[in-house]
Amino acid sequence: MKKVLITGFEPFGGASINPALEAVKRLAGVELVGGKIVVCEVPVTRFESIDTVVNAIEQHQPDYVITVGQAAGRTAITPERVAINVDDFRIPDNGGNQPIDEPIIAKGPDAYFTTLPIKAISRTLQENGIPCQVSNTAGTFVCNHLFYGVQHYLRDKKIGHGFVHIPLLPEQDTLGNQATMSLETIVEGLRFVAQATIDNPSDMIIGAGQIC
Amino acid sequence: MKKVLITGFEPFGGASINPALEAVKRLAGVELVGGKIVVCEVPVTRFESIDTVVNAIEQHQPDYVITVGQAAGRTAITPERVAINVDDFRIPDNGGNQPIDEPIIAKGPDAYFTTLPIKAISRTLQENGIPCQVSNTAGTFVCNHLFYGVQHYLRDKKIGHGFVHIPLLPEQDTLGNQATMSLETIVEGLRFVAQATIDNPSDMIIGAGQIC
Amino acid sequence: MKKVLITGFEPFGGASINPALEAVKRLAGVELVGGKIVVCEVPVTRFESIDTVVNAIEQHQPDYVITVGQAAGRTAITPERVAINVDDFRIPDNGGNQPIDEPIIAKGPDAYFTTLPIKAISRTLQENGIPCQVSNTAGTFVCNHLFYGVQHYLRDKKIGHGFVHIPLLPEQDTLGNQATMSLETIVEGLRFVAQATIDNPSDMIIGAGQIC
Amino acid sequence: MKKVLITGFEPFGGASINPALEAVKRLAGVELVGGKIVVCEVPVTRFESIDTVVNAIEQHQPDYVITVGQAAGRTAITPERVAINVDDFRIPDNGGNQPIDEPIIAKGPDAYFTTLPIKAISRTLQENGIPCQVSNTAGTFVCNHLFYGVQHYLRDKKIGHGFVHIPLLPEQDTLGNQATMSLETIVEGLRFVAQATIDNPSDMIIGAGQIC
Repeated sequence: MKKVLITGFEPFGGASINPALEAVKRLAGVELVGGKIVVCEVPVTRFESIDTVVNAIEQHQPDYVITVGQAAGRTAITPERVAINVDDFRIPDNGGNQPIDEPIIAKGPDAYFTTLPIKAISRTLQENGIPCQVSNTAGTFVCNHLFYGVQHYLRDKKIGHGFVHIPLLPEQDTLGNQATMSLETIVEGLRFVAQATIDNPSDMIIGAGQIC
Repeated sequence: MKKVLITGFEPFGGASINPALEAVKRLAGVELVGGKIVVCEVPVTRFESIDTVVNAIEQHQPDYVITVGQAAGRTAITPERVAINVDDFRIPDNGGNQPIDEPIIAKGPDAYFTTLPIKAISRTLQENGIPCQVSNTAGTFVCNHLFYGVQHYLRDKKIGHGFVHIPLLPEQDTLGNQATMSLETIVEGLRFVAQATIDNPSDMIIGAGQIC
Repeated sequence: MKKVLITGFEPFGGASINPALEAVKRLAGVELVGGKIVVCEVPVTRFESIDTVVNAIEQHQPDYVITVGQAAGRTAITPERVAINVDDFRIPDNGGNQPIDEPIIAKGPDAYFTTLPIKAISRTLQENGIPCQVSNTAGTFVCNHLFYGVQHYLRDKKIGHGFVHIPLLPEQDTLGNQATMSLETIVEGLRFVAQATIDNPSDMIIGAGQIC
Repeated sequence: MKKVLITGFEPFGGASINPALEAVKRLAGVELVGGKIVVCEVPVTRFESIDTVVNAIEQHQPDYVITVGQAAGRTAITPERVAINVDDFRIPDNGGNQPIDEPIIAKGPDAYFTTLPIKAISRTLQENGIPCQVSNTAGTFVCNHLFYGVQHYLRDKKIGHGFVHIPLLPEQDTLGNQATMSLETIVEGLRFVAQATIDNPSDMIIGAGQIC
């Protein structure tokens, strides 16, 4: 019986809603084949976001951690491949911080790869009719910050972790300027992300690269 | 008690599904405030598509007609502003026809504007959390062909009509290359299109233009 | 010896530059095979823009008129297929007008098709290495207004006319948010538009349609 | 007097042209303020591409190395922030290799950050009217492979290096499906990249992050 911790960010940048938070509310306590989901809400503030997830890990002792954030404009659920050791915030976080080109962890390695089976996850969602695509950049804002910080904390532990970006909800862009995804599809997609993570201790060897 | 005929195209271009057809299946018989929906399935074949809808109009005697088709890549439900008198098919229709720059109606006017309240429709969907945007081109394939042909048939009749494009379904692009919209959101959106049509015998004066 | 009048809009919307104006400055007096180019600058103001071009037509007595405007975000030179009889301005024009859903010509037809050989034009530019694509919407701002108004004025005259949208210049979006095209490419492209217009009294039958 | 080595890839993926190669041909021997440019052509083949640039570095003994490749669809010149230690080729390289999720350097670090002053470079190009934007992913094909491999080779040497992606040329997409940039603008842009590199031994602290 595996335990999967899924975390979701609060709203930020003046928004009143964050699809990641709405999704984790619906995923709390959901049963998987051979596992169950626990969740936690994360502030959109550098350092504090990492502390919050680290505390949740210590409290819940999960086998896997899936951190989730909103990616405006994306058309698919996108498991991230890599976290990089830099904060370069285009807008202030919810604590008013706006660092430029500062390391997340001083003298930390330049990057950490995900330890989730992102190819198996993508295949699983696609086979279930949900748009999914590996992403090679988690940006340089709080999403990447949290991804890197949690990966650094887990570097010597036997807990898989990765970050997953999700699209905006339809109600977040009713003028239709950007792609969106319904909350039902996002919740179902994240449930498959968790299930595929449990089901694939080793990732599949499937091409999902980008030329650039 | 108003009757609204909503029509949906069959799959085309090698696809096995068309969100317009899936949506109208779910909209058949749906009750509105002051009205109800009847539906009809339309072949993706020039002329035959028009004949099919004209026959359905003669059979159902609706107050309003909403013809619906799939628009790959669009991020919103898009009521069309204008139909133009030209067939320029990028791919063959389901009957194998691929005309280039032929008129739909010989000596017909160059265009017909929609007679649906597209501004009120857009406002209604947006207020209900569904991405909606007026479009100024219905393309030059069978969607525009049907829009023009039905508008020409109705030119002296007191039946409102317009064409509405809808996005792909998530399962139609699981690699995430294009925006999609869930069937639930599309069906709810089209129900609001029908309701707003009944509720607004005259359109609202709301800006929804494009610079180009 | 054919005379081609090419017109370019002034800057608008707070910009200090308009690629259409920059291009026509460089095209003034340019010789073509079997023709020459004359130009005129056009204010971005409804009605006044039409009057300006009509005056230039009466002064220059051209064989062909090519009206040109800027289309932010487009990746190609785009000859427009059709002008529609509606003003729906997303932003005010340079005279402060911002009409919503008003006709350009009261009781005018809903649309006019271009009378330029847009398929031959597209083929010519493409063969000369310049991105070109037929567009099916000129928007609902002053570009479409001028296109419609000039086409209406010319409806019984033997002067070909159409509107061509061009991309932004690189210096108009140095942050790289939208596609741009160099002034050299635009000028060369518009010269080919004029040459292809002279060379093709009848358009080629080449598919260049859009599904939607 | 600083020496800047700029390298450009051969055509790949069935294309007959690569803007990177065309650009470096024109940049060979160009004089900068306080420096000059030398160039080298690079095969689009994993490992061999790295060897070629390493050989050129050993031959030319440059102060800075700027590796350049084509990025279809991008609207700007994009200095890359980070190279990651993975080959995941969507298409075969010119040697027929198509690795999936293989490391470029076994047991190498997960990533290397650029050692070019990418913020100063971006500012310089923007101030000179050339679209430029920091990119946070160089993809997972030969561009990233070369970027990572050269950075690994230089890790203990006092030679700055980074990768710069450039858009397609207009003649590479005459149908206008993607953004392009003229060769003149690309060449001028890369000259500014080299000049800004010489002029800024330390990078500027300017925000250029992405939310995701």
